[in-house]
Amino acid sequence: MNILRASDIREILKITQRPEVISFAGGLPAPEFFPTREIADAAVRVLERSGTTALQYSPTEGHTPLRRWIATRMNTKWGTTLSQDEVIITTGSQQGLDLIGKIFLDRNDVVICESPTYLGAVMAFNTFRPRWVEIPTDEAGMEMHALEAALKRETKVKFIYVVPNFQNPSGRTWSLERRKSLLALAIRHKVPVVEDNPYGELRFAGEPIPAIQSMEGGDQVVSLGTLSKVFCPGLRVGWLAARRVFLDRLIIVKQGADLHSSTFDQMVASEYLESYNIDDNIARIIVAYKKRRDVMVRALELEMPRGVKFSHPEGGLFLWVELPPGINSRTLLKRCLEHDVAFVPGGSFFPAHNRENTLRLNFSNMPEDRIVEGIRRMATAIKAIMRETAKAEGARAIVE
Amino acid sequence: MNILRASDIREILKITQRPEVISFAGGLPAPEFFPTREIADAAVRVLERSGTTALQYSPTEGHTPLRRWIATRMNTKWGTTLSQDEVIITTGSQQGLDLIGKIFLDRNDVVICESPTYLGAVMAFNTFRPRWVEIPTDEAGMEMHALEAALKRETKVKFIYVVPNFQNPSGRTWSLERRKSLLALAIRHKVPVVEDNPYGELRFAGEPIPAIQSMEGGDQVVSLGTLSKVFCPGLRVGWLAARRVFLDRLIIVKQGADLHSSTFDQMVASEYLESYNIDDNIARIIVAYKKRRDVMVRALELEMPRGVKFSHPEGGLFLWVELPPGINSRTLLKRCLEHDVAFVPGGSFFPAHNRENTLRLNFSNMPEDRIVEGIRRMATAIKAIMRETAKAEGARAIVE
Repeated sequence: MNILRASDIREILKITQRPEVISFAGGLPAPEFFPTREIADAAVRVLERSGTTALQYSPTEGHTPLRRWIATRMNTKWGTTLSQDEVIITTGSQQGLDLIGKIFLDRNDVVICESPTYLGAVMAFNTFRPRWVEIPTDEAGMEMHALEAALKRETKVKFIYVVPNFQNPSGRTWSLERRKSLLALAIRHKVPVVEDNPYGELRFAGEPIPAIQSMEGGDQVVSLGTLSKVFCPGLRVGWLAARRVFLDRLIIVKQGADLHSSTFDQMVASEYLESYNIDDNIARIIVAYKKRRDVMVRALELEMPRGVKFSHPEGGLFLWVELPPGINSRTLLKRCLEHDVAFVPGGSFFPAHNRENTLRLNFSNMPEDRIVEGIRRMATAIKAIMRETAKAEGARAIVE
Repeated sequence: MNILRASDIREILKITQRPEVISFAGGLPAPEFFPTREIADAAVRVLERSGTTALQYSPTEGHTPLRRWIATRMNTKWGTTLSQDEVIITTGSQQGLDLIGKIFLDRNDVVICESPTYLGAVMAFNTFRPRWVEIPTDEAGMEMHALEAALKRETKVKFIYVVPNFQNPSGRTWSLERRKSLLALAIRHKVPVVEDNPYGELRFAGEPIPAIQSMEGGDQVVSLGTLSKVFCPGLRVGWLAARRVFLDRLIIVKQGADLHSSTFDQMVASEYLESYNIDDNIARIIVAYKKRRDVMVRALELEMPRGVKFSHPEGGLFLWVELPPGINSRTLLKRCLEHDVAFVPGGSFFPAHNRENTLRLNFSNMPEDRIVEGIRRMATAIKAIMRETAKAEGARAIVE
């Protein structure tokens, strides 16, 4: 079922390639912040200095200087205590999810996830046909009594999958307390935690919250990261970080999956990270995305009818909308596409349950004036549907 | 078991990174033929002209001009009738194998393969825990009566996996007749054929033989290709080519596996292929590899004792050696490593059976003088083991 939904999304993305479409559908970073010239310079330097290495097969684990940079970065930003040997490079963090599925999941094994959860994880893990157990969430993360009940009830839980910072699709960030409670429960039930953190560096305000992996007992956490949101996604540089007990198995399945990730991309990324200050780039991205989030939130506040709720994420790329009950976001999408506005219906992000009155908005990829115009058109469509629904109900009430 | 062997190979490859080691172990192309400067120029042009596209997320299927180039190339070289929509780009052809495993294999399904077969395929497919049925081979390919018997006997055959040109590890090329017979049997038993062709362009002599996919009934063939051996492996550009009935499912699992292959690598490869004549590069590679094969064959003929047999491949990167029965190539490897010579013991290439008196030699990656020296040292070690074995048997004969 979710596989069909994934292809729905590919269809939406095709439509959004038309330049007149205002798209809140993708999860695309803003291309104007790709350090294109620096990457060109880095590529030339890598090929001049070590072309035969950069174009040759290379170790499955990844390029050593890049692994070292990532371990240091994670330890500095997220409080972990990783060595370079505890990091392997993957072909985007999407591949990390696939490899995790491969080592943990057999048919009918249970994956515990947030409700809603990241669609890419649903796609990756569904290849192995697990059963999904969604845990209700509030503004601080999973509801712990529900998680505890699931861990007590389910016997085949292979891991708990969470995106604790600016989650895709909800934009939610977990509190420190909730992270600690999750890990305590995971330790008590001897269940690994998969901590996916693609957006953590894109914080617009407030202080970063330490990674679950950095906490006492974090040895049973496998974490995923990526350069896609802070550098560029076209080079497909992601990573898995974990103690060797997990990593050794991940390396073996990685070897079977693609031998190794692009040597060239890894060395170009590494050369960029050594030669330039990525924090300057991240600072520029944050200023722009924060502004776009503000513009989108203000437009939603101004345009949307009462009964439409939306999240106020402190970072990342996404904002989550709940329509009044009974309004299906797929119906809304059809209407919006007629007016050249696209988004992703929320149903796709619920692998087990479904809430068709939700939707995800991406605010990173459109300039501000188009955000305002797009939200205005969406609000017009929502109001029209609400009026029609009310009229139909009124008519039914008269007939009945 | 084979997973352990894969890690053995990684150990061997680590040893061979020491510069004093004469390595016939890897499958590495000769880096002196990587078009390094052209790739640097192509990378700069791609980033200047279309940097924001090259560094952004891109469609799962791959970069359209590259897919078009590959379809045309295959149709010209191998007689297929593929459109660009029937080609998708993969992260090296290793990923193609993984994706094929994902759509076809469940636990205990049967894969039919040549005996010996490509170790990378064994690694990729073993993730899905199939049962392997090896078909004996002679100089022209699989023995057809054995294949027919297997197809009649086995009920859960999901596909037949073959490398018809300059096979890894044997160096063998299938005859036209044998290709036709294989396809006829596959059609009769309604079993797909997976045709892996990484080395086909590296033919030193004689005429290319049409692909199985190009023949009547070739619609049930899924083929794999790669730029790794004719361009460079560091960019990880491979492909899958098949009718859409297969390809649609492969695209969905590819999306779950890594979203898409490196946009940058695909566009740089495409720019290279449009701007330069890859046939010039292939011609240079062929001249060098042919010379190296000749040098290795001559050294083997000169140095090896009677009872050591070896193949005479017409192309590719590998040559296959059979030691006298009773001589274990793992024992030989230990001895050779003491003298700084490495190769891959043949046992790794037999997923079901095992023939420990075989080994694979790579001739593409070492200069000619080191090939001669390495074969000389190997021959010395083999002769020593043969003498010791004979002495031990003699001693036993006296005692008994």
